[in-house]
Amino acid sequence: MRVGSLVASLLTLAIVIAMSGCGDGGGDVSQPSSGSDGQKVQQKVKLNMASAFPTSLELIGSNGVRFSKTVEEVSAGTLELKFFEPGALVPALEAIPAVSKGSVDVAWSTSGFYAGNDLAFSFFTSVPFGASADELLAWLQYGGGNELADEMYAEHNIKAVPCFITPPEASGWFRKEINSVEDLKGMKMRFFGLGAKVMDKLGVATQLLAGGDIFQALQLGTIDATEFSVPSVDESSSFYQVAKHYYFPGWHQATALGHAFFNMDIWNSLSAYHQRIVEVSCGYILKEMIAEGEATQAPAMRRMVEKHGVTIHYWSDEILNAYRKAWNEVVVEESAINPKFKKVHDSYTKFREDYKLWGEHGYMR
Amino acid sequence: MRVGSLVASLLTLAIVIAMSGCGDGGGDVSQPSSGSDGQKVQQKVKLNMASAFPTSLELIGSNGVRFSKTVEEVSAGTLELKFFEPGALVPALEAIPAVSKGSVDVAWSTSGFYAGNDLAFSFFTSVPFGASADELLAWLQYGGGNELADEMYAEHNIKAVPCFITPPEASGWFRKEINSVEDLKGMKMRFFGLGAKVMDKLGVATQLLAGGDIFQALQLGTIDATEFSVPSVDESSSFYQVAKHYYFPGWHQATALGHAFFNMDIWNSLSAYHQRIVEVSCGYILKEMIAEGEATQAPAMRRMVEKHGVTIHYWSDEILNAYRKAWNEVVVEESAINPKFKKVHDSYTKFREDYKLWGEHGYMR
Repeated sequence: MRVGSLVASLLTLAIVIAMSGCGDGGGDVSQPSSGSDGQKVQQKVKLNMASAFPTSLELIGSNGVRFSKTVEEVSAGTLELKFFEPGALVPALEAIPAVSKGSVDVAWSTSGFYAGNDLAFSFFTSVPFGASADELLAWLQYGGGNELADEMYAEHNIKAVPCFITPPEASGWFRKEINSVEDLKGMKMRFFGLGAKVMDKLGVATQLLAGGDIFQALQLGTIDATEFSVPSVDESSSFYQVAKHYYFPGWHQATALGHAFFNMDIWNSLSAYHQRIVEVSCGYILKEMIAEGEATQAPAMRRMVEKHGVTIHYWSDEILNAYRKAWNEVVVEESAINPKFKKVHDSYTKFREDYKLWGEHGYMR
Repeated sequence: MRVGSLVASLLTLAIVIAMSGCGDGGGDVSQPSSGSDGQKVQQKVKLNMASAFPTSLELIGSNGVRFSKTVEEVSAGTLELKFFEPGALVPALEAIPAVSKGSVDVAWSTSGFYAGNDLAFSFFTSVPFGASADELLAWLQYGGGNELADEMYAEHNIKAVPCFITPPEASGWFRKEINSVEDLKGMKMRFFGLGAKVMDKLGVATQLLAGGDIFQALQLGTIDATEFSVPSVDESSSFYQVAKHYYFPGWHQATALGHAFFNMDIWNSLSAYHQRIVEVSCGYILKEMIAEGEATQAPAMRRMVEKHGVTIHYWSDEILNAYRKAWNEVVVEESAINPKFKKVHDSYTKFREDYKLWGEHGYMR
């Protein structure tokens, strides 16, 4: 080898190492290598992330892209989570199963979409008459919630990192005003998570549809009503075009949590540095979504009322009590047949009981 | 040059570039340099950060260290914010002024400690009968709050990045039970921020003491009462040893925000990459503190009641109304004499008015 080409090769090496980015926290499994002083070289990692929510959906879709961008920024380009719209790799509801099987690296989705495998997964998204966003984060990190999720997801070869959160959902869109529990009977409604079990008890025929499929089903009359998300997300889904009665509060989801779901083998192949980049970026996104979620609901509601003739309702005590009673029945019945459901519910309930001393004094009544 | 030493030189270059860290977002001002393909080399930056809160204080102190650690981790060691306890560089209340003057690079503190320069700074910490943590974050990011803070701090050569947050504070520690507004008159009390103006109106003689100085003042009788922070922080301050009546809710601080205050010249000298590392790390810390803050109050309250004989009180409507009336008077009076106070208050109030449509429907009443 001539000196010239050696110099060129070594310069290329220098540049490749420099471009490979940050020097802390371990190399990639496929090419571990270290520099001097214990510094390890970080190889560039590219992963595919299948989203359950299209970017056209404010908050829950758009923040998937923000997450991907944040990871790339703070890892100085060494970790790329390439965002794919629902359907581009797999259908929305298949994103988590695909991660479990390993056909997709990462999913931007929410545990409730995995409840077909075990209803207990729903607790990691939201619980009827449950904790608000801040209290849910407290249970997850300090009350054992994350450990329970880790345990359950590990059985499916998944590492789930809490990564998105919304304020309380709206309760749903109805073509007709609902004045009594009787009015709900026989209705076909898109419903998600544990709340669906409650609606079933009240005589509603529920089904789970992905966000992108709801509008058409509502328009065609395949369903009579739907709940989906918070007002700003519901607005970007245009439900107001076909249903004008919009109900609050979202008793079924006082918040909704989502995760970045990593195939476990992929997660384990990441350096400690890249794992930390994911955790910190997810924390940042959770904060961003809290701020955005609180800021954008009132304007969306105002537009829907003023421009689109939507009527906003707040459930009567009678109806809210019926929901609550039905939820309590669901808890008893599911706990009796599903030990995981009981285990997670017990942890969640114990945390909330302990929390009350603070919750009832710390906040203005 | 022999080929051997050339190889050694180039290998050293490769390692130096690799160790210099992350390749995105621009070089350091003092040594800008770039690799190929537009990748820039990140030089190691070390800054001193003076904390207004000792690490012995849970939540508001300990998270200063967590912030420093997070920045170092996600920047792969290229950005170091060295945490100094209060008094090590400057006294607690002097941390922000020191940043303004440039004698300290960064302060871990809260805007209310800078209210001597302009009372309007207090809005960026907390407002009596004001927004809770989530709504405050919404106002800051989407209602113009951060822009107003930027404007005011720029005049003091400071860049303030929102970086810590607490749940509602407790209302305060009293040696004697307070049964009427009359009981407050003539009392000497440590009080912070805008709430101090309210207490002054009710005949309380308030003074601002740093966290580390309160216990002794209370013990010696220099003050009769104190508010400070949330139960877990108050517990680590041991106030329960000298006052047994603990009042809720913290009408004066429904949340408390803190910032990482950078000397503006220092901030401007940071690469875009390092600035982004700070922003993302601060977002992560805000989320961490929301979870920790919500999780640790009930256990702290329980310990104080069960082990230390503390009595927990909730203010009567009569007293809360007196606080509220006095706060409304403060707003009118200060707005008349301080255009900045009026400007910030107007922005804050407008946001909260707009928010109501959501706040009153989205949440369970």
